[in-house]
Amino acid sequence: MKNDGLLIVLSGFSGSGKGTVMKRLMEKYPGEYALSVSATTRSPREGEREGIEYYFKTQDEFEEMIANDELLEYARYVEHYYGTPKFYVEDKRRSGIHVFLEIEIQGALKIKEKFPDTLLIFLVPPSIPELAGRLRGRGTESEDVVKARLSQARVESGYMDRYDYIVVNDDLEMCVEQVHDIVQVQKFQAKRSTELISRLQHQLDDFLKGENV
Amino acid sequence: MKNDGLLIVLSGFSGSGKGTVMKRLMEKYPGEYALSVSATTRSPREGEREGIEYYFKTQDEFEEMIANDELLEYARYVEHYYGTPKFYVEDKRRSGIHVFLEIEIQGALKIKEKFPDTLLIFLVPPSIPELAGRLRGRGTESEDVVKARLSQARVESGYMDRYDYIVVNDDLEMCVEQVHDIVQVQKFQAKRSTELISRLQHQLDDFLKGENV
Repeated sequence: MKNDGLLIVLSGFSGSGKGTVMKRLMEKYPGEYALSVSATTRSPREGEREGIEYYFKTQDEFEEMIANDELLEYARYVEHYYGTPKFYVEDKRRSGIHVFLEIEIQGALKIKEKFPDTLLIFLVPPSIPELAGRLRGRGTESEDVVKARLSQARVESGYMDRYDYIVVNDDLEMCVEQVHDIVQVQKFQAKRSTELISRLQHQLDDFLKGENV
Repeated sequence: MKNDGLLIVLSGFSGSGKGTVMKRLMEKYPGEYALSVSATTRSPREGEREGIEYYFKTQDEFEEMIANDELLEYARYVEHYYGTPKFYVEDKRRSGIHVFLEIEIQGALKIKEKFPDTLLIFLVPPSIPELAGRLRGRGTESEDVVKARLSQARVESGYMDRYDYIVVNDDLEMCVEQVHDIVQVQKFQAKRSTELISRLQHQLDDFLKGENV
């Protein structure tokens, strides 16, 4: 367990820049972080590759993964399943790589309940006018879509206090550093230092019993 | 409250290098950190200056400070009082400076109980043989004193899991950076971000009510 990578959830309002932050984080610290690849029953869109953007599954295959407890979490949106396969996450973590899940709040809270050691990070824009500007700036979103996304953000904001850390994505480089620092200091938490504590206690016991140290 | 400095307790086994770490931390980040100055009823030793090493008080003065609730914590060792005056800590914190208390475990746990927001950091040596070597290397400690200090460390080790973070002091510069990073990421904790959360919620409410944003 000692050198296992952490399981980290990165959530945030639509338009908060989760994808960009993840991309830059993995580019800047190669080999330290991985982004979990989800499984889904929806069809691949143009350019989407098996095992890169998603693992594409039939409904039967997906339901077999559920039955075999092969998913960390899953949800059904409209007529399709989306879920996080365990094998990818566990394999990376065992190699000491911190694995990020980019999932929404309900999934995040389910994961935290099942695996209390999960680190939950929520990404926010510096302000809502700034966020609205970013969403409009994409040029592809009608004003109704912008409003729907901010309405969704209002609902999500009610759960922000259930996260461990909240990071403002104003300057990208600074934001990436802050996420990196948050992850890096976790290993110093007393609750993650039980091996260190018992090693020192054993050495103290040996010393006090007069063994040669 | 928003930009107040944190209250931080740094504890650690005798010989773990608390003093050296604090000195280097304050040297490296001037204006960011302060070390609380204790009050005591014992007499100044050679070279000790009022308000620098300690605030020197008579027994009556100290007991008046206790009666007036002017101390964050205090304890009596042998025939002398030692305590942490509030005014210094509060004055610094209001200026956004993080204030360290270098106190032992019982005092630390009392402080944490009274002020749950306090950050508790415990400093340990890389190993007990290394610690024994450092204590012997001082040249001033008899083997009995070394043994007494390690016996005390064994007792203290039973409380390490009550701390928030445990940092190994192997390489001084690395240790100072780790303490600095731990302190710096605290401001991203969701529990310290209530103002940010409610600001964003108000802005979302304004936007969704159709006000111009």
